[in-house]
Amino acid sequence: MTTQEVADKLVAYCREGKFDEAAAALYSPDIVSMEAGAPPGMSRESKGIAQVKAKGEWWVANHEVHSGTVEGPLVAGAHFSVAFKFDVTFKPENKRFQMEEIAVYKVAGGKVVYEEFFYAMG
Amino acid sequence: MTTQEVADKLVAYCREGKFDEAAAALYSPDIVSMEAGAPPGMSRESKGIAQVKAKGEWWVANHEVHSGTVEGPLVAGAHFSVAFKFDVTFKPENKRFQMEEIAVYKVAGGKVVYEEFFYAMG
Repeated sequence: MTTQEVADKLVAYCREGKFDEAAAALYSPDIVSMEAGAPPGMSRESKGIAQVKAKGEWWVANHEVHSGTVEGPLVAGAHFSVAFKFDVTFKPENKRFQMEEIAVYKVAGGKVVYEEFFYAMG
Repeated sequence: MTTQEVADKLVAYCREGKFDEAAAALYSPDIVSMEAGAPPGMSRESKGIAQVKAKGEWWVANHEVHSGTVEGPLVAGAHFSVAFKFDVTFKPENKRFQMEEIAVYKVAGGKVVYEEFFYAMG
């Protein structure tokens, strides 16, 4: 798949809230995922599909998504970017907030091999 | 200015090829600029408006732009992304190539305070 095809599929999955399916279908076993920040003692970086899937499952289990938009993709060479805006509640603290972030993805061999998220630190 | 306003102005400048004017009008004195890679012995990171302007001037002096497109912006919170595609010649080696990159910008206080470029390393 080209970068454009991977990007279009990822956006389609995310618009349906199918984040797990996106990772299963499109991510390389060697995916590296970088957050803007991490809790004390944790790493910004998750390496490998097992760690990245675990991070995704934690997110889905701990957030209720009330509504959201997925804009993009912008595609350039091996990279593409997407804008995510979600109205969510962080369930452990019953705290509702607006999550807005820019995600950048790198594609190699038809799979996503790198993702990085840009957002303001709370 | 909001993130959206800064993003729209930056894209408008870049579509006119006015990269220097974009930096002069929109960049913080404390801008940090991050490349995907750097030549041996050089840094990926430029800090401060003087270094960032110098990098931009070097780029403009050493490249002939035949054509290009600027797509976006995608805006989310304090960040936005833009896709650049340029057909350029690197003048010192008379080498023509297609430059495609995703740029991510962070806005604070109405100015761009961080930019990062994502592209395949040659």
